[in-house]
Parts: sequence; C-alpha cells; structure tokens
Amino acid sequence: MTETIETTRSFKPKFSPEGLIPAIVTDQRSGDVLMFAYMNETALNETIATGIAHFWSRSRGKLWKKGEESGNLLKVIELRTDCDQDVVWIAAEVQGDGVACHTGERSCFYRRVVEPADAKNAVLEFAPLPAPKVPKV
Amino acid sequence: MTETIETTRSFKPKFSPEGLIPAIVTDQRSGDVLMFAYMNETALNETIATGIAHFWSRSRGKLWKKGEESGNLLKVIELRTDCDQDVVWIAAEVQGDGVACHTGERSCFYRRVVEPADAKNAVLEFAPLPAPKVPKV
Repeated sequence: MTETIETTRSFKPKFSPEGLIPAIVTDQRSGDVLMFAYMNETALNETIATGIAHFWSRSRGKLWKKGEESGNLLKVIELRTDCDQDVVWIAAEVQGDGVACHTGERSCFYRRVVEPADAKNAVLEFAPLPAPKVPKV
Repeated sequence: MTETIETTRSFKPKFSPEGLIPAIVTDQRSGDVLMFAYMNETALNETIATGIAHFWSRSRGKLWKKGEESGNLLKVIELRTDCDQDVVWIAAEVQGDGVACHTGERSCFYRRVVEPADAKNAVLEFAPLPAPKVPKV
C-alpha cells in the first residue's frame, strides 16, 4: 500500500505559505476548547522539545511562550495532527491560575451565538462552556 | 465601560483578508476535536440559518456542506466565538455513521505525536482520542 500523508507515521507538518500552522488547544480534563493560535516551525519545535506550548504571535511578530508572564503556561499532555497534517491539536493542562485567555476567562470561547431568526443579526451570550456528556474511561 | 470586541454581545466575526474564519468542530458528547476547516461569510451564515455546518472548501473553491454526500452531516449544538471573534467553535453531533473524517475515522485527529528525543525526528502513532477526565453536569 502506498503511504500517504494520511497514513504515514512520519510527522510532516504542513505550514502555510506564511510559514504557519493552526493550533487548537483544549483542556485535557474537560475537553473544552481553550484557545486557538498559530505556530511557526520554531514554535512547534519548542513546543515538542519543552512540553510547553509556544506560538507565533502574528501581532507582535515574535515567538510567544504562552503564559510566560502570567505563569499560566500550557503543559502539553498530548499533541495530535489531523489527516492532512496541516493543523495541530494540543490537549493541555493549564498551569498557574488555570486561565488561558488574556481577558481572565478560563477559555477564550466564553460567548456563544444565540440562535437568531436572522443570521445577520446574531447576538452573543456569555455562557458556561458546553459539557462533554459521556466521560470516557 | 467602553464596549470592546471582547465584551460586546454583538456577533462581529472577523474574516481574514481572504474572507475566511477558522472553524473548530468538536464532538458535543465527548469533547474530542473532530475536524478543522474554514468558513467564508456565506458558509457561516448558512451554518447559522440551517443548524448544519457549512465550510468553504479552499481546494475546490466552493461552498461545502460537510457530509452532504455521505450523510455524515454536522448538526450544530452550539456555536461559539473567541475573545477576538476571529475563530469559531462548533460543538456538533455527527449524523449518519458518526464519522467526521474523509478517511473513515471518527475524527481527523487519529494520530498523536510520540514524544521524541529530537523534535525534528518526531513520529506519529495511531492512538485513541484523549479522554476528558472530568465529566461536567
């Protein structure tokens, strides 16, 4: 069988033309999505080498060790990639105060879209994170 | 208090210069990340209007109703956005066979990076999805 990007055991992360790969971070305990950011090759290598999530700050144009100042580092419990190897998913344990968002919220996704009658007039609601319903053992 | 993009209840999704917004899809029951794709404004509006996830297929250059052919539609249970409103997160219920990946896997993230001695030589392992450890009620 021919080995493809979907079946290979080689990690060949595919970066965008800008040299970035999207990274999803979830809370390893609850499964909630905590944040989303981009990594460049250096950030991904640092993440793997240190076990602490690093990103590329597009706004500041530099390597970003998340939580370096606040102490809310993201400890990598598991790092995954998808079928096309153009996204990574980190299941993390948030260190320090357990806060992943710069607003002070635990997750950046603290608002949900309220079902609108009209998509153009959708509004947001501050709401607790969705709960996984079936714990796996 | 001045209303900001982080505090507003107005849904003002921020699309990239290419007109796209990243979309994370998780399994509403388990919390597992199922897939990641991009939406344009039409796809986001269709998703909100129909309750079924739509994306923009960058490879095919057209609106993509995920699962239209396979029957594995993604029913939106909850749609969230992040602090900056430049990402969306869908907690979904997979219809049909419960398969979200084109490879036939339930999730696109069926491989994890094995802790390497050297980041450049990381390898992948086909492994069950991480389990949220604390069910929320």
